[in-house]
Amino acid sequence: MPNSAPTIAGLHSAYAAGATPAWVVAAAYARIRAVDDPGIFLHLAPEAEIQAAAAKLPAFDPTLYPLWGVPCAVKDNIDVAGMPTTAACPAFAYTPARSAFAVEKLIAAGALVIGKTNLDQFATGLVGVRTPHPVPRNAFDAARVPGGSSSGSAIAVAQGIVAFALGTDTAGSGRVPAGLNDLVGLKPSVGAISARGMVPACRTLDCISVFARTVDDAFAAYAVMRGFDAADDYSRPVPAEAALPRRIGVPDAASLMFFGDHAMQAAYGAAIALLRDQADEIIEIDLTPFLAVAKLLYDGPWVAERHAAMRAFLATNANDVHPVTRAIVGNAGKFSATDAFEGLYELAALRRATEPTWSRVDALAVPTAPIFPTLAELAADPIGPNSRLGTYTNFVNLLDLAALAVPGPFRPDGLPAGVTFIGPRGSDAALARLGAAFEMPAAKRRGATRPAAA
Amino acid sequence: MPNSAPTIAGLHSAYAAGATPAWVVAAAYARIRAVDDPGIFLHLAPEAEIQAAAAKLPAFDPTLYPLWGVPCAVKDNIDVAGMPTTAACPAFAYTPARSAFAVEKLIAAGALVIGKTNLDQFATGLVGVRTPHPVPRNAFDAARVPGGSSSGSAIAVAQGIVAFALGTDTAGSGRVPAGLNDLVGLKPSVGAISARGMVPACRTLDCISVFARTVDDAFAAYAVMRGFDAADDYSRPVPAEAALPRRIGVPDAASLMFFGDHAMQAAYGAAIALLRDQADEIIEIDLTPFLAVAKLLYDGPWVAERHAAMRAFLATNANDVHPVTRAIVGNAGKFSATDAFEGLYELAALRRATEPTWSRVDALAVPTAPIFPTLAELAADPIGPNSRLGTYTNFVNLLDLAALAVPGPFRPDGLPAGVTFIGPRGSDAALARLGAAFEMPAAKRRGATRPAAA
Repeated sequence: MPNSAPTIAGLHSAYAAGATPAWVVAAAYARIRAVDDPGIFLHLAPEAEIQAAAAKLPAFDPTLYPLWGVPCAVKDNIDVAGMPTTAACPAFAYTPARSAFAVEKLIAAGALVIGKTNLDQFATGLVGVRTPHPVPRNAFDAARVPGGSSSGSAIAVAQGIVAFALGTDTAGSGRVPAGLNDLVGLKPSVGAISARGMVPACRTLDCISVFARTVDDAFAAYAVMRGFDAADDYSRPVPAEAALPRRIGVPDAASLMFFGDHAMQAAYGAAIALLRDQADEIIEIDLTPFLAVAKLLYDGPWVAERHAAMRAFLATNANDVHPVTRAIVGNAGKFSATDAFEGLYELAALRRATEPTWSRVDALAVPTAPIFPTLAELAADPIGPNSRLGTYTNFVNLLDLAALAVPGPFRPDGLPAGVTFIGPRGSDAALARLGAAFEMPAAKRRGATRPAAA
Repeated sequence: MPNSAPTIAGLHSAYAAGATPAWVVAAAYARIRAVDDPGIFLHLAPEAEIQAAAAKLPAFDPTLYPLWGVPCAVKDNIDVAGMPTTAACPAFAYTPARSAFAVEKLIAAGALVIGKTNLDQFATGLVGVRTPHPVPRNAFDAARVPGGSSSGSAIAVAQGIVAFALGTDTAGSGRVPAGLNDLVGLKPSVGAISARGMVPACRTLDCISVFARTVDDAFAAYAVMRGFDAADDYSRPVPAEAALPRRIGVPDAASLMFFGDHAMQAAYGAAIALLRDQADEIIEIDLTPFLAVAKLLYDGPWVAERHAAMRAFLATNANDVHPVTRAIVGNAGKFSATDAFEGLYELAALRRATEPTWSRVDALAVPTAPIFPTLAELAADPIGPNSRLGTYTNFVNLLDLAALAVPGPFRPDGLPAGVTFIGPRGSDAALARLGAAFEMPAAKRRGATRPAAA
């Protein structure tokens, strides 16, 4: 079971009261030993190195340094200067001299990056098992998938090792593991955080994301990283405005799918019941065009973006790539440039079909994940459960939307289940307000769900 | 030599004074017979049909019907209900039951569509000679190319047959023929006018454009057609705001190319000299990243958009396609989906490199066409002169810019030469203000140019 470590605000209260980063760093490393999960970190800085960095922090000033003395972890497809970047493919390893733009911002704000975390190789997957390393253990049930691709980052936060961790999110990699480990997963608008220094998955869609235990913590890290970066061709500033979304759309019966997972269905039902108490309106929405977009991502030409990102490496190192990843990226060869443009046309048509939704609602509230697969199910079928996991995440970046996964009522079997709020591009701060209003203690979320009728 | 027929305002003055559309229609058809150019129209409505339509016009009210009684022509890759659409490929012909969105707007505003005009087949070309039909004659020199792809529409206006005509503009087809025939060519922001009912060239870039003899006339037709169309997936409204651009960028010496055409160079120099009298600042700009974008359009994967538009037809009718067009579109097969996405990345990088220009200047002023090829030159080399013609037009739609080609000082040899103003997306109305301020009578433009030193 996960450990409830302090939040950023909690750490800062402790620092204000005289605690030192040395204690906090020591506690993080003690927690790493206690958790004893060899799948979380692909590179862990020696404790002495982080203690030395902590000792060099400027004087405590949480206004100047909003992440002062806050340990964090970074997914291993994002550069941290001096630590190897591998994307969970050892043969791909390089050691960058410079950190990613986002990581530079975290460090400048006082954060302590303790290590690099495991992932579905090249961030291709939503399960967390497509790695040549040990699979990180789901924080609630070691027989279930941790979720991916940002598996290690999610587990590092869920296990109370760090207050927050960076993930990346192209198809849902920053949300699905949040949903399966009772975490907040903040997926910004595309381009709100520079992707410079991130190993690309699909360059037109990639986002750096944040896992944390509270919305405030996730937003604090996001706010530090947000900003225009002229050196990232896809960087696009977002407005900071944030009216609380009041009209919330939920999938209508025909577009609400759980693939037979009644526990997920019950948990989502309980979440929406709670949401009714705070939203002005709950409006049923036909998600059909959204779900059709989701299918484009892996079944359509966008797989060629993954191929573009790995093209040179694949030419020399195909055998070093995870077989499932290799098979998926290999599909890119089926698509011509003509197919790519036809895919863009299809996306434009579906985007147009989704647009009227945003005049009816301010945000959508969908299940973060419709199922909670076991490791055994993935071993039997490496593709199917992975695809189903992305039902409510795949469409988000293709439609240029923002999303925030938050913990919801637990399932009747005690496993976590998340709700994801989705809003138009630029709604990052508004979704954070909605998420913070919805957030409630785990104890309250435990009693909220009744088993659904089968 | 071209005929100076009345403008829209001139026609409306005449109508207000008692003239009738019957006279104007009769004059248009008389002019068609006098010009006697079999290359202009691919379909011409019988005069009686247009007279009947004119007779059915509501009472004259230029406020309610800003194009009341104004004859116009439509490029034959845009649907007009009841007239065949062929895109200059007879085997492609179909007769639409419904007009294009833009044409419906024209007709509702009182315009009289008299026929469909010739073009470089499937709008692929900037020369006007890639047609199985007779080539429309350049209005100033029958030995020179008319410019394309909207050749027939440009000549119909230049010869005084109609007050305005619709073209399309993906790579410059609405500007180059304007420049080579002393016309205004208005190329709106992408999506400002719905492209529904247009045969696609490159769906992500296509624009319906307007040829007219004055900026006011072009803008009047544009203003009627402009507007959101939910049924066009690429329709995007533009703001109507229009501050007069005051800081004008011109290519620096290294990015100003005329390929040895000293007459074009002299005319452009004279244009900029005149512009200095009205602009607050003339600022030299390094156009290198703009020109690099231009190369992407035909040398890069965007040719696959042309293939996507013709794919089904090519599969059954390859031999019905003009050999030059077939060869160009055949290049699409060289590009994979991976190449397509890599092209998008390259474009994003170049777009980023062009962005700082728009904080330095409000508009660019470039030559509309750097050369004025003869028909003989095109016969000897069907590709080279065509490519060079697009030097200052190809990049515009890829960079999501607006453009307005206006007549400039004549060349020392008496041939026309145009200047094109280019501004950011949404600057359509601002460019029209700039163009109207720059506009001057042909007599004044004739004396402005001195031969350049060779």
